[in-house]
Amino acid sequence: MKFTDPVSDRLLAVARDLFTRRGYEGTSVRAITARARANLGAITYHFGSKQALYHAALESMTEPLVERIAAGARTAGSPLDRIEAMMRSFLEHVADNPGAPACLLRELASERPLAPPIAQVMKRNLGTLAQTIAAGQQDGSIRAGDPFLLAMSVVAQPFYITVASRVIKEALGVDSKDPATRARIINHVAETIRRSLTNEP
Amino acid sequence: MKFTDPVSDRLLAVARDLFTRRGYEGTSVRAITARARANLGAITYHFGSKQALYHAALESMTEPLVERIAAGARTAGSPLDRIEAMMRSFLEHVADNPGAPACLLRELASERPLAPPIAQVMKRNLGTLAQTIAAGQQDGSIRAGDPFLLAMSVVAQPFYITVASRVIKEALGVDSKDPATRARIINHVAETIRRSLTNEP
Repeated sequence: MKFTDPVSDRLLAVARDLFTRRGYEGTSVRAITARARANLGAITYHFGSKQALYHAALESMTEPLVERIAAGARTAGSPLDRIEAMMRSFLEHVADNPGAPACLLRELASERPLAPPIAQVMKRNLGTLAQTIAAGQQDGSIRAGDPFLLAMSVVAQPFYITVASRVIKEALGVDSKDPATRARIINHVAETIRRSLTNEP
Repeated sequence: MKFTDPVSDRLLAVARDLFTRRGYEGTSVRAITARARANLGAITYHFGSKQALYHAALESMTEPLVERIAAGARTAGSPLDRIEAMMRSFLEHVADNPGAPACLLRELASERPLAPPIAQVMKRNLGTLAQTIAAGQQDGSIRAGDPFLLAMSVVAQPFYITVASRVIKEALGVDSKDPATRARIINHVAETIRRSLTNEP
């Protein structure tokens, strides 16, 4: 399975597309194999099961995000600057992967146990963020408090504008896909995060 | 339809339960009528269509929330106090309606046009919040900025801890349903909201 071949590549690409649009329960093995021009047993052969293919599809979306967030955490600047870089990395990743939020929302709404790649990506990103917050607490730039709770408050901002973008558009008429509006929202979020973290002198 | 009767009450209660757990597409007319001990045509007779019953089920969850948020906005105290009361009202509503977040998440993930009750509840609650923020800007207690963007930043906090509670539990081992943990998280959220809004002298 380490040596990918055209069939498993096609299965993964089709699975990512269908799972994103229709969810796990709404996507049949038959629908995936038919569109990938593979035989009905190809998923079992290449991935082991429909569930394993689903997890592989999720991982192919979450792994690049973890790398981007980690890269943001390694940029130059103060802890607050690095936290802003991580937030911007997250929003760039979502812009490049418009199907990712729907996948995450369906997982969160599901009664199944959470898919391991989703639990992993949250754990790793919140961990990286909490470490950066702890570094800011050490140097006195970030206020005291449980780094994980503070990390959750940071994540809440880009998370909300991402998953609620449809509601924001339909309820408020604010189109967060319009570049100027998007820049205004992102700058607002960046300022809000700084205010919520900055240590008062 | 204004005079509810036992059959339409049962249909609504069953619909709320099944739509919450399985989503709109995952719930058949047959499943609802069978469990409500009604005939197959009862949904059409009492509500008009499966979609109209779905909207009625959503409304039966969103209406009490709108009323609670509005009551929070009318409490005594400064605009910041009222915003905290609204945030606490929201979290109490979710605690009383544990199925509501999954409904909202499925709507946000769906490719269908957003259900009107969801668009409405967001619009009205963000509107009430923005008005309270504008009142705080008038009296100088809340910082300058677009009231709707500030309202979105406020909403993001309780929204995230609500919809991500499973991830928070599975990824971080933080059980937001444990009363002491819950109180700690809510106090953290309240403080973060105040910091993000307070006007610096």
